[in-house]
Amino acid sequence: MMESGRLEAFSDGVFAVAITLLALNLAVPGPGHGPLARQLVGHWPSFAAYVICFLTIGIIWVNHHTLFKNFAKIDRTLLFLNLLLLFFVVAIPFATATVAAYLGRGGADASLAAAIFQGVFEGMSLSFGLVFWWSIRREHLKIARTTAGARPAIIRFGIGNVAYVVAIGIAFLSAPAGQPATRAG
Amino acid sequence: MMESGRLEAFSDGVFAVAITLLALNLAVPGPGHGPLARQLVGHWPSFAAYVICFLTIGIIWVNHHTLFKNFAKIDRTLLFLNLLLLFFVVAIPFATATVAAYLGRGGADASLAAAIFQGVFEGMSLSFGLVFWWSIRREHLKIARTTAGARPAIIRFGIGNVAYVVAIGIAFLSAPAGQPATRAG
Amino acid sequence: MMESGRLEAFSDGVFAVAITLLALNLAVPGPGHGPLARQLVGHWPSFAAYVICFLTIGIIWVNHHTLFKNFAKIDRTLLFLNLLLLFFVVAIPFATATVAAYLGRGGADASLAAAIFQGVFEGMSLSFGLVFWWSIRREHLKIARTTAGARPAIIRFGIGNVAYVVAIGIAFLSAPAGQPATRAG
Amino acid sequence: MMESGRLEAFSDGVFAVAITLLALNLAVPGPGHGPLARQLVGHWPSFAAYVICFLTIGIIWVNHHTLFKNFAKIDRTLLFLNLLLLFFVVAIPFATATVAAYLGRGGADASLAAAIFQGVFEGMSLSFGLVFWWSIRREHLKIARTTAGARPAIIRFGIGNVAYVVAIGIAFLSAPAGQPATRAG
Repeated sequence: MMESGRLEAFSDGVFAVAITLLALNLAVPGPGHGPLARQLVGHWPSFAAYVICFLTIGIIWVNHHTLFKNFAKIDRTLLFLNLLLLFFVVAIPFATATVAAYLGRGGADASLAAAIFQGVFEGMSLSFGLVFWWSIRREHLKIARTTAGARPAIIRFGIGNVAYVVAIGIAFLSAPAGQPATRAG
Repeated sequence: MMESGRLEAFSDGVFAVAITLLALNLAVPGPGHGPLARQLVGHWPSFAAYVICFLTIGIIWVNHHTLFKNFAKIDRTLLFLNLLLLFFVVAIPFATATVAAYLGRGGADASLAAAIFQGVFEGMSLSFGLVFWWSIRREHLKIARTTAGARPAIIRFGIGNVAYVVAIGIAFLSAPAGQPATRAG
Repeated sequence: MMESGRLEAFSDGVFAVAITLLALNLAVPGPGHGPLARQLVGHWPSFAAYVICFLTIGIIWVNHHTLFKNFAKIDRTLLFLNLLLLFFVVAIPFATATVAAYLGRGGADASLAAAIFQGVFEGMSLSFGLVFWWSIRREHLKIARTTAGARPAIIRFGIGNVAYVVAIGIAFLSAPAGQPATRAG
Repeated sequence: MMESGRLEAFSDGVFAVAITLLALNLAVPGPGHGPLARQLVGHWPSFAAYVICFLTIGIIWVNHHTLFKNFAKIDRTLLFLNLLLLFFVVAIPFATATVAAYLGRGGADASLAAAIFQGVFEGMSLSFGLVFWWSIRREHLKIARTTAGARPAIIRFGIGNVAYVVAIGIAFLSAPAGQPATRAG
């Protein structure tokens, strides 16, 4: 088994890099591509996606530590479920860049880009759910200072997390889903 | 509540990545774009911005730890105020690249780029102020070894930080603000 | 000698950045380069390479900590053998991008790209083997809590690691090796 | 004063990101730019620079920890001298990319690129020297377990470090310095 601290430090590194790489998508084309103001306005999906993804990774990070601080040891299954979670976290900058590039265009491409974005977020949410489900079955891994009140708090976080992801999915993706016919073609 | 160490480790990761990504803006166009010396001279806003941003993130990092080393536990509000601070730190490479690309051009674009740069720095300064304001109201979170002399030191840092940001804002942005008419058009 | 914790923290940072940079290769050309669906399908080697490399770095990271948690101190030789291992880990995003760009093209270029990819992975596997071989000879560096059962577990990890790398090498590279004649030219 | 561990963790993050970003320079132009083998051969300065920079950052990292593990507290001056050191570390990927792009071309551009590369490395070496010089004057900061034998070891590291940087500077830069006339024009 591995110390919980190792897993948290590595996950923190991945979260920190992913959250910082998100900002690389903000770059506008630069001089020679029209007024800066128009470039920034046309670039709004990137800014919206940056805010949403930053918040989401931030919240996943908070939930990640709320869960793992209850453990002193990590077994092999939790280790790989955590890698699965990080797999989707690392894919977020890609999904964000793709949806930001295609969101305003409508048509099949916008729907596909939205589906990729939603798929990555649902994969992240699902793998966090798996980590959560496995961890509440491993009572013997927990450290002594876990009080009886910890589990409801964890469950509350888990539900809130899923609800959050569903909510932003609906909010962010309802636009392209509702208007493909008007812009396509 | 979360252990203070977790928050510091994650914040350190974000600071470290943001400070290193700044240097990506230094790249010159390369062979086939004229003499290297002329490319470097024409690229001076990137170098100036790199030095300023490196110093600023470095100082914010120093202040961040001066503040958080007084805490053993972090409550939920501090956690989100810290995420807000990191939100602006992560946006610095974008703001730097934009202002460096437009600073020497004058006109409305240079003013807008300067406003974005200033906005990100003021957002960072303001969110650091919020973290600071919230933390001095949470006496019960502090660890025992905090001496009576800590608070004046923190306040001094806070004031110095704000003064620093204002000063560089004025110094760096006074040039484009004063000369838009001569270069625009 | 160096504390083991320092080496692990630095290695974790390198692993975390390398695993996150992998996802930069996923970016598709974007609007104006044909339907998104066709871009994604034509981009399949990048996605396959991402999954394989993520798994491989993840497993190397697990093995790295399984090995180093048995040590309290690191001698100079282990330090440089670990740097050699990281040297190959850091080269993985490059090898992945190259093989993903050339894999579907067949011919001498695909074979060369496959050889580079395989070379980086074999270098990583070999340097991990060197770290492993050196570490089992340094009994005096180990911390007291290392039980007699630790070494078989380490050996099992080492063998599994090599077998894994060989297996993916064969699986991933058999395609271009078998079909250069049909696509080349 | 700051705990030594904070400074080391932040510096580790910067070292880890800088060492990983180095590999971004390895990317070849890709399909449509001639045979891969010729691209790789023409790209040799990037590979040579990658190996040299990886080794250099690795050795600076080893020396950094050899020095700082003797300290329990860091004063304000050391903090800023360390930021100065990191300033040059972060600039290494830029200096490497520039020298790799211009090294094979000869002429004034190659000399300038070599001077930039050498300047960044000398800045790094000089700032490490400043950190070293300041630290041996601050006896009161040191932790109790520092034995009498530590200082000679530190001095040996310091000298070795400077010698190393000088040596690679001469080795790497002698080529363009000796042949500008043959290729320029």
